[in-house]
Amino acid sequence: MSERLVLHEDPVSGNCYKIRLTAALLGVSLERRQYDILAGETRTGEFLRDVNANGRIPVLQVGSRFLPESNAACWYLADGSALIPEDRFARADVLRWMFFEQYNHEPNVATLRFWLRIVGLAHLTDAQRSQIGAKRTGGEAALELLDTELASRDWLVGKSVSLADIALYAYTHVANEAGFDPGRYPAIGRRLDRVAALPRYVPMTA
Amino acid sequence: MSERLVLHEDPVSGNCYKIRLTAALLGVSLERRQYDILAGETRTGEFLRDVNANGRIPVLQVGSRFLPESNAACWYLADGSALIPEDRFARADVLRWMFFEQYNHEPNVATLRFWLRIVGLAHLTDAQRSQIGAKRTGGEAALELLDTELASRDWLVGKSVSLADIALYAYTHVANEAGFDPGRYPAIGRRLDRVAALPRYVPMTA
Repeated sequence: MSERLVLHEDPVSGNCYKIRLTAALLGVSLERRQYDILAGETRTGEFLRDVNANGRIPVLQVGSRFLPESNAACWYLADGSALIPEDRFARADVLRWMFFEQYNHEPNVATLRFWLRIVGLAHLTDAQRSQIGAKRTGGEAALELLDTELASRDWLVGKSVSLADIALYAYTHVANEAGFDPGRYPAIGRRLDRVAALPRYVPMTA
Repeated sequence: MSERLVLHEDPVSGNCYKIRLTAALLGVSLERRQYDILAGETRTGEFLRDVNANGRIPVLQVGSRFLPESNAACWYLADGSALIPEDRFARADVLRWMFFEQYNHEPNVATLRFWLRIVGLAHLTDAQRSQIGAKRTGGEAALELLDTELASRDWLVGKSVSLADIALYAYTHVANEAGFDPGRYPAIGRRLDRVAALPRYVPMTA
């Protein structure tokens, strides 16, 4: 990767952290450009025109090109590395967990964390409040499924860490901030410890 | 792919159609095993144990292994084909659109279609009814973004069809069934026509 890599991010976002963690594990350097989501800095005309018409971070800038979607950015960085298995089924299985993360896990666990920890209960709209119960149930189902899956093995795909584990680490390791009880998911807890013990691991606050 | 391929599916699901369309374009044969979502056939103990603990279709069975998540199954089938570009950035950009599809498009466009066309307005819960407005707004935003993106080019990534176009074809081409007005998205319409004109294309009802 000879091109300049710039991560457009908000440091409180687990989706942004995924990319920083992937880069760190691979020994790749990223420049960082920070935005405050709450202050609307990803909804300005300039951001929508130049960075992401979808008004979201993270976006990985590669030279003069822009790549939105956290898991796509992780894939770009890890392509050709040991974080993506060579076996055809295993490679698709990594994506299976990454799509699960964005469909079943992130909209529940990450959104609840954002609402409860970052926006604050008192500032939620009625529509948001009415969804808390469903997101709690959905988040618990996602964590339960992961925990059952990990009860019998160390990593989600194959016998070593893959992008699937990194994608599902980011918000799972702060699920307590969304009101989920880590004690209910012991197999997840052991996997979180395994990720945190990887060489070159960086914490979310780095 | 020498192993037996079985698609566990409900024919009304656009997520299942994506996989059938990908296989058809590649000239790959799939066996089909059908389930009725409304009748709870993907929530039986047998299904949860043997096919997908997440209780969802589609699942692509490859020999004795099971691969949930529609876009992961498409990736498995298309891996090594022209539907996935060789260029590293373009490959990640295909995934970018597939993650956009599952995060911004499917939960709005597909869910509204399921609620309004398949379940029926009269049978929705109060919680579902209360989300219709937000899903309408979210679906329109996703379609508007796609339409703007396609105004200046024929395909989402590069100069030929890729998995990004297939993933975003499935529910977009039936967005009218969810109450979206296709006339508002002329560039999307031209891209839908291009997909339908591809050699070996199969319609959703095939």
